Amino acid sequence: MSRIQGQVRIVGAGLLGTSLGLALRKSGVDVIVSDTSRASQALAIDYGAGREASAGDNPNLIVVCVPPDHTAAVLAQELSTYPNATVTDVASIKQTVLLELSELGADLSRYVGSHPMAGRERGGAISGRADLFIGRPWVVVPNEQSEQARVDLVTDLSLEAGSVPVNMEPLEHDHAVAAVSHVPQVVASLLAARLISTSSQEISLAGQGLRDTTRIAASDPALWVQILSANAGQVVPVLKDFAEDLAKLIAALEQPNASGALASISRAIEAGNRGVERIPGKHGGRHTNYSTMVVMIDDQPGQLARLLNEVAQIGVNLEEIKLEHSPGAQIGLVELSVLPAVEQKLFDDLTARGWRFA
Amino acid sequence: MSRIQGQVRIVGAGLLGTSLGLALRKSGVDVIVSDTSRASQALAIDYGAGREASAGDNPNLIVVCVPPDHTAAVLAQELSTYPNATVTDVASIKQTVLLELSELGADLSRYVGSHPMAGRERGGAISGRADLFIGRPWVVVPNEQSEQARVDLVTDLSLEAGSVPVNMEPLEHDHAVAAVSHVPQVVASLLAARLISTSSQEISLAGQGLRDTTRIAASDPALWVQILSANAGQVVPVLKDFAEDLAKLIAALEQPNASGALASISRAIEAGNRGVERIPGKHGGRHTNYSTMVVMIDDQPGQLARLLNEVAQIGVNLEEIKLEHSPGAQIGLVELSVLPAVEQKLFDDLTARGWRFA
Repeated sequence: MSRIQGQVRIVGAGLLGTSLGLALRKSGVDVIVSDTSRASQALAIDYGAGREASAGDNPNLIVVCVPPDHTAAVLAQELSTYPNATVTDVASIKQTVLLELSELGADLSRYVGSHPMAGRERGGAISGRADLFIGRPWVVVPNEQSEQARVDLVTDLSLEAGSVPVNMEPLEHDHAVAAVSHVPQVVASLLAARLISTSSQEISLAGQGLRDTTRIAASDPALWVQILSANAGQVVPVLKDFAEDLAKLIAALEQPNASGALASISRAIEAGNRGVERIPGKHGGRHTNYSTMVVMIDDQPGQLARLLNEVAQIGVNLEEIKLEHSPGAQIGLVELSVLPAVEQKLFDDLTARGWRFA
Repeated sequence: MSRIQGQVRIVGAGLLGTSLGLALRKSGVDVIVSDTSRASQALAIDYGAGREASAGDNPNLIVVCVPPDHTAAVLAQELSTYPNATVTDVASIKQTVLLELSELGADLSRYVGSHPMAGRERGGAISGRADLFIGRPWVVVPNEQSEQARVDLVTDLSLEAGSVPVNMEPLEHDHAVAAVSHVPQVVASLLAARLISTSSQEISLAGQGLRDTTRIAASDPALWVQILSANAGQVVPVLKDFAEDLAKLIAALEQPNASGALASISRAIEAGNRGVERIPGKHGGRHTNYSTMVVMIDDQPGQLARLLNEVAQIGVNLEEIKLEHSPGAQIGLVELSVLPAVEQKLFDDLTARGWRFA
């Protein structure tokens, strides 16, 4: 039995629209999928994200999943076409969308913004999956005119998709995503751009640190131009603070023997330590909440399965696994993350079964 | 039978020294471990990284594994104490070490610098492991006076540890690591520092992108002050280019409606795309070399083992595994990375066995 009654109309069959359709179909909701691209719409429907629109449709809830630049216009049109429906969107900026919508004279009482903090590096219906939103924060962003029942409905939508709803005002949302998403994107892109001029031999020295630091630099420029320009008011102050810190560090590095220079460099690295410590772990806890142990295995098919089989026999649930091995190497390393309460038991039982730890 | 003949003396029983000792002991080399900290030395020896020094020692090869600030002084002392030995180090900066060593009047013909590109976030003997260097680049850095037989011996050392030797001149090395390691460290630290002032609610929206981008910001300030100040000459120009790009992007974001502003933002993100594309994958190939598929499993002990057991039965070797699940969620997701040649077989066979893909 779904929390969501009546028809849900999804406008935009990209990654988010398709994934949401798949999630809602799983709990039996009647989902209508609409996209100005016939091909995208057909693909999403083929994947099981919902059905085509038909004449008698009377959606109770409409979710606009189009690029940020088009969000306000499509929202206004949907609010006007379906005069009883609650209408929401999934754009990653909220204040600009609300202002544009207000300028278009839309009925803001039936509009509640939202932003599921979910995505993948690959976009499109083809990357859609029903569990995209599970365990992720979903920001619900009412405006001053939003009716409470509409807010509750959008909150129910986030819960139905498996997300954790978080209530914020539009500017508060935009300020938060500037810090945790937009500024990191800018910094990763600018850092990766420095690699263009490296030689093949230089770049061959790259390690996991560089890979992690620049991974999101692979993101879509068209999307990010829209996001960054729409949220420039929140992004620019953070970038300016960053630039100021950078200028200080460059000055210290230019005269490392000057009085106070080394202390200044150290403070910059220490501040990074403190900042990264604030990031919650994968499931919302502190990132120190898991205990990890590294097991050595023969780097051959079957060894890892045998290990995990025995972990299962011991009755311990793994929170994370990292596998590391190199072609031709005899030994692979498996990092197992578990809740601290079961760490000792797992270590003891695996040791008793003959496993070796690195 | 080891490539390395005679005794190897390792000075400094931290992560690298201990790991190297463990690796060499595996091929039966007589390893002497020495550290000014008796506790570190005893711990490394307990772990099997080698034996204590004794009166009759006559090392053929000496590897100095102390912090960068102390490297030149210790190198000079070892070169003087053992007048026939080849002496190398593992410091992550090479030009400064060579200059300091030259000023100390050391015998440079027996010195060959080196830098294994290996490490972990946790340091110390306790984190040492024999396979730390396997598959990693190991930069061999001769100076103008280095004798060829000494260079060959240090190259053999890197091969014995399982690394891939790369030959570079000191400045060439320092320029390369500035780009792929030192500048990313600075940028990650400065970015993470911006998180100190976020509210708990704001930081709760953090996703994997932020975690990856800032992971290395957890690194040791004491070590990085030494590295950055010693390599400032190579790091500063890259940081200045970065700062210039950043200033341009800030200017564009301050006037996003100005002519050319959006194109300028787009170019910055596109340049990041091109930069990240240059990074080789985990095993030295392009990072697109693996095919990935995402399998859905019940989020319970035993399911993952069953999956991997069947992967092993199918006879396919996994290159990487990523596990993602949330407490309370019914479904876990396992991303399997395999060589492209076996992707279709694995997909078909797993499908035939009833596994579902996300």
